Amino acid sequence: MRIDLNADAGESYGVFTYGHDGEIFPLVTSVNLASGFHGGSPSRMREAVALAKAHGVAVGAHPGFPDLVGFGRREMALSPEEVYADVLYQIGALYAFLRAEGLGLHHVKPHGALYLKACRDRETARAIAEAVRAFDPEVPLVVLPGTVYEEEARRAGLRVVLEAFPERAYLRDGQLAPRSLPGSWITDPEEAARRALRMVLEGRVEALDGGEVRVRAETLCIHGDNPRGPEVARAVRKALEEAGVGIRTF
Amino acid sequence: MRIDLNADAGESYGVFTYGHDGEIFPLVTSVNLASGFHGGSPSRMREAVALAKAHGVAVGAHPGFPDLVGFGRREMALSPEEVYADVLYQIGALYAFLRAEGLGLHHVKPHGALYLKACRDRETARAIAEAVRAFDPEVPLVVLPGTVYEEEARRAGLRVVLEAFPERAYLRDGQLAPRSLPGSWITDPEEAARRALRMVLEGRVEALDGGEVRVRAETLCIHGDNPRGPEVARAVRKALEEAGVGIRTF
Amino acid sequence: MRIDLNADAGESYGVFTYGHDGEIFPLVTSVNLASGFHGGSPSRMREAVALAKAHGVAVGAHPGFPDLVGFGRREMALSPEEVYADVLYQIGALYAFLRAEGLGLHHVKPHGALYLKACRDRETARAIAEAVRAFDPEVPLVVLPGTVYEEEARRAGLRVVLEAFPERAYLRDGQLAPRSLPGSWITDPEEAARRALRMVLEGRVEALDGGEVRVRAETLCIHGDNPRGPEVARAVRKALEEAGVGIRTF
Amino acid sequence: MRIDLNADAGESYGVFTYGHDGEIFPLVTSVNLASGFHGGSPSRMREAVALAKAHGVAVGAHPGFPDLVGFGRREMALSPEEVYADVLYQIGALYAFLRAEGLGLHHVKPHGALYLKACRDRETARAIAEAVRAFDPEVPLVVLPGTVYEEEARRAGLRVVLEAFPERAYLRDGQLAPRSLPGSWITDPEEAARRALRMVLEGRVEALDGGEVRVRAETLCIHGDNPRGPEVARAVRKALEEAGVGIRTF
Repeated sequence: MRIDLNADAGESYGVFTYGHDGEIFPLVTSVNLASGFHGGSPSRMREAVALAKAHGVAVGAHPGFPDLVGFGRREMALSPEEVYADVLYQIGALYAFLRAEGLGLHHVKPHGALYLKACRDRETARAIAEAVRAFDPEVPLVVLPGTVYEEEARRAGLRVVLEAFPERAYLRDGQLAPRSLPGSWITDPEEAARRALRMVLEGRVEALDGGEVRVRAETLCIHGDNPRGPEVARAVRKALEEAGVGIRTF
Repeated sequence: MRIDLNADAGESYGVFTYGHDGEIFPLVTSVNLASGFHGGSPSRMREAVALAKAHGVAVGAHPGFPDLVGFGRREMALSPEEVYADVLYQIGALYAFLRAEGLGLHHVKPHGALYLKACRDRETARAIAEAVRAFDPEVPLVVLPGTVYEEEARRAGLRVVLEAFPERAYLRDGQLAPRSLPGSWITDPEEAARRALRMVLEGRVEALDGGEVRVRAETLCIHGDNPRGPEVARAVRKALEEAGVGIRTF
Repeated sequence: MRIDLNADAGESYGVFTYGHDGEIFPLVTSVNLASGFHGGSPSRMREAVALAKAHGVAVGAHPGFPDLVGFGRREMALSPEEVYADVLYQIGALYAFLRAEGLGLHHVKPHGALYLKACRDRETARAIAEAVRAFDPEVPLVVLPGTVYEEEARRAGLRVVLEAFPERAYLRDGQLAPRSLPGSWITDPEEAARRALRMVLEGRVEALDGGEVRVRAETLCIHGDNPRGPEVARAVRKALEEAGVGIRTF
Repeated sequence: MRIDLNADAGESYGVFTYGHDGEIFPLVTSVNLASGFHGGSPSRMREAVALAKAHGVAVGAHPGFPDLVGFGRREMALSPEEVYADVLYQIGALYAFLRAEGLGLHHVKPHGALYLKACRDRETARAIAEAVRAFDPEVPLVVLPGTVYEEEARRAGLRVVLEAFPERAYLRDGQLAPRSLPGSWITDPEEAARRALRMVLEGRVEALDGGEVRVRAETLCIHGDNPRGPEVARAVRKALEEAGVGIRTF
C-alpha cells in the first residue's frame, strides 16, 4: 500500500505571501506550483522550486485561469484554444525553473476553477490534456476520478493519476460536495486523517448525503493554504504511517 | 559572406494587434518572440510560433521588463535576481510553444529597455546571461558589440551573436545614437539598405557625429513594428542579395 | 424625433491601438470609454477624454470584466460584491480624467460579457446598478430593453436609457441573435442604416427567425472597433439626418 | 502641539493579504490607501475604506508605479505625462469608493519608488502635483521637506503637508539614510517613539552620520506593513499622548 500526498504551493506573488510552503513541503511528497496566472511570480516560483529541491519533493505544474485578483477561483469562459495556450504557457514557465535546477516536470494538475470546469466540461478537459501531451506525453495528469476530465486525459493517452480529498465531503454519486453545503469542508485534522486512511485502505468513505461512496486515490490533496493545512498534513501523514502505508510519490 | 536578418515579433496581445508579422516573417531569417511581459499573449504566441514554422524562420525568445502598458520600453530598477527569474520565466513560456511544434529555441535577445540596460549595466547583463545558461548553455545570446553586455555573455561561456541596426544612427564611439538626437532614426528604406550593405561588406558605417564607425554584425535588426518595416526589410534584403550576400540565420 | 449614436471607444492600451477613435468621434454623439480592465490605459484614457472634449461628444464609463487579454469578452463568475467593486473602481478612474478636463460623467454602459451577463443575471445587473447609484444616482445607465438588467436599473431608481443595435440581428422574442447564428451580424453599411431608420421611425425591425420584433431605442450602438465601423456610422447618420431625425445625446 | 500619524494601508490584493490594517487603523489618524497599481484590488479597497470609516480615520490616495509584482518599490522610467495619467487614474479609483461611503478625499501621498523619485526628480514631482491639482486643488499633498518634490507641490499652489519618519534614520543633510546603510532602519518601538517625540517637540533628531538634523513634521509615517508596525504605532502614540501632544489629522 502506498500513496502520494500533494499540496498546491508556490502561490505567493512578489511581496504577497500566500500559503504555508515552508511548513507544508516537509510533509508532502509532491507539490503543484503556480505559474503566475493565479499566483506565483517568477522570483517566488524560483524560491518554491528551490524549496522543493531541498526537500526532495516532486514538482508538478499548476496552471490556472488568468485571474490573479480572483486567484483563479472564478470560472471563465475561455475557448478550448485559449485553455490550450494558457496551460502550455504555464507549463513552460515552470519548466524553465525546474530545468535550471536540474529537475524534471513530474506532473500537471490544474488549479481551482479550471480544475472544476475540466471535471464537467469535456472541451476544457481535452484542451488541458492536449497541452500536456504537446509538451510531453510522458507527464502524468492528476484528475478527479469518474469525470469527463479523467476520460479526456485517458483518451489523450496520458498517464492518469487519481486524486482524492480527505478534507472535502463527497456525495453518494462520487462528486465533491459543493462548498455551499453545510459539512462540505472537514476542518478537524483527526477527522481528515481518519478519512484519508479509509480512502487509502478501504477505497471508500462516508458520503455527506448518506451511505458510502467509492473513492479511488493515488494521491491525496492537502490544502496548504488553509490555516490548519500543516496540522492536517501532519495528522494524515501520521495516520498513514502508523497504518504502514508507504508515503511516496507516483 | 552571409548575414542573418532578425525582427522582433509576436508582440500582439489578445485582441490588440501590434506590428506586421504577416508581412515581416517572409522577409527575415530569425524572429524574436515576446512572452507576455511587454507583449505576446499565450494565444498570440502560439500563432506567431506557427507562422514562424510555416515560413521556416528561426525563433528566439525576446524577454522584456514586466511592463505591458509601457511595452517594456521604460527602464525598471529590477535586482539581478529579479532579472534572472523574469528572463528564465519568459524563455520557458516561449519554449513550451516551440516544443509543442517540434521546434527548438534558436537564440535569446532581450527587448527594449532591458536590452539597453544590459548594454551598460553589468549586473543586469550577467543576470540575463546566467538565465540563458541555466536554461540551455548551447543557446546563443544576441548582443550589441562593444558593451558590458557582450562581455558578460562571453564570460558566461555563451555563444554570442553580434547585432547591428541599419535603421539606427551610430555615434563615433560605436554606441547607438540616442533617439532624442535629430537624425538618429533612418526611415528611408533605400538609405537603410545602403547602410546595411556597408555594415556587412565593409564592417563600417557613417557616424552621426562625423567620421565613420566600425560595425561588426552577424545579424541585422529590422524594426517590424515600424509602419515602413516591411518596406525596409524588402529593400535591405534586395540590396544584400544583389551583392551576393547569403541571407541565412546564424 | 431624436436619437443618440454611441460607440465604445478609448480601448487602446499603451502602444496597442484598438478601434478607430479618430474617425468615429466626429460621427457619434456619445462614447463609452474603457477604464483599464478590458482596454484603456491611463495615458490612452486621457487622450480619449481630450478627443471627446474636442468633438463635444458626451462621455460615459464603460466598465468591463478584469480581463485585458480576453478584452472583457469572456464571461467570468464574479460575485455581486466583486462586480460592484469593479464597476465602482472603473467609474472613478474615468471620472478623474473627466473632472481634470472640466467634463461630467454622462452615463454608464457596461462592456462585452459584463453587459451580456447583466441582461440575464439579476444579481450582476443589481450590482452594476448599485455601483452607479452609489457613485451618483443622477447618472443614467444604458440598458438592453426587456431584460432583468433594465428591471434592476429601474428598481435602483436610475434613469434608464434604452439601447438598440442596428448592426446586430434580433430574434422574434426581442433578444439579440447569438453571434454563432448565420446572419447575426449586419456588415453592410446601407443595410445597417436602413435598420437604424426603421428602429427609430417605426420602433421595429425584421427578426432573424421570421416576422418582426419591437425595438425601443434612445441610443443606437455603432461598433467602432469594426473595420467598417466608421462607414456604418456615416451611413446611419446620413439616413437619420435625411429623414429629419435629430441626432443628439440623451 | 499636535501631529498626525499616517500609515500606508489597503495594500492587500484579492486573496493576498498584506500589512496589518485591522491593528493599525485604530492607532493612526490618517491612512494612505493603494489603488491597484502596487497593491489594493477593488474589493480590498472597498474593505479598507469601510474600515477607515468605522475608525474615523482620514483617507488619502496612495498612487504608485504600475508594478504589482514589485509592489511599486522599483523605480520606473515613466515620462511626466505617464506619471500624471497614472496618478490621476489612481486618485479617481479610490475617490469612487470614498464617494460611495460619503467620505471625502483627504490628501494624496505617493507610494514607494514614486515618492522617492519625486523627491529628487523635478519633472516627476511636478506631474504628481499637477495631477492632484487637476483633480482637486484643495487636496493637500504629503511631501518630504526640503526636496524638489516639496518645491513643486508648493509651486502648483497645493497645500503641502510635511512628513517625517520616526522609523527611518536621517543623514545630516536632511535626507533619509539609504536602506543599504547599517542602522538606517529603527526597529525598536521604544526608540522609534523617542525619536518621534523629539521630532515633534524639538523639530530635530540625531543623524546617522553624526550630529543632529532639523526635522519639520506635520505627520509621522508608521510602517504598518512591518511585522512590528502595530507595536511601533502603539509606542509612538503613547509617548506623544503622555507628552500632551494632540494626535489629530491635518
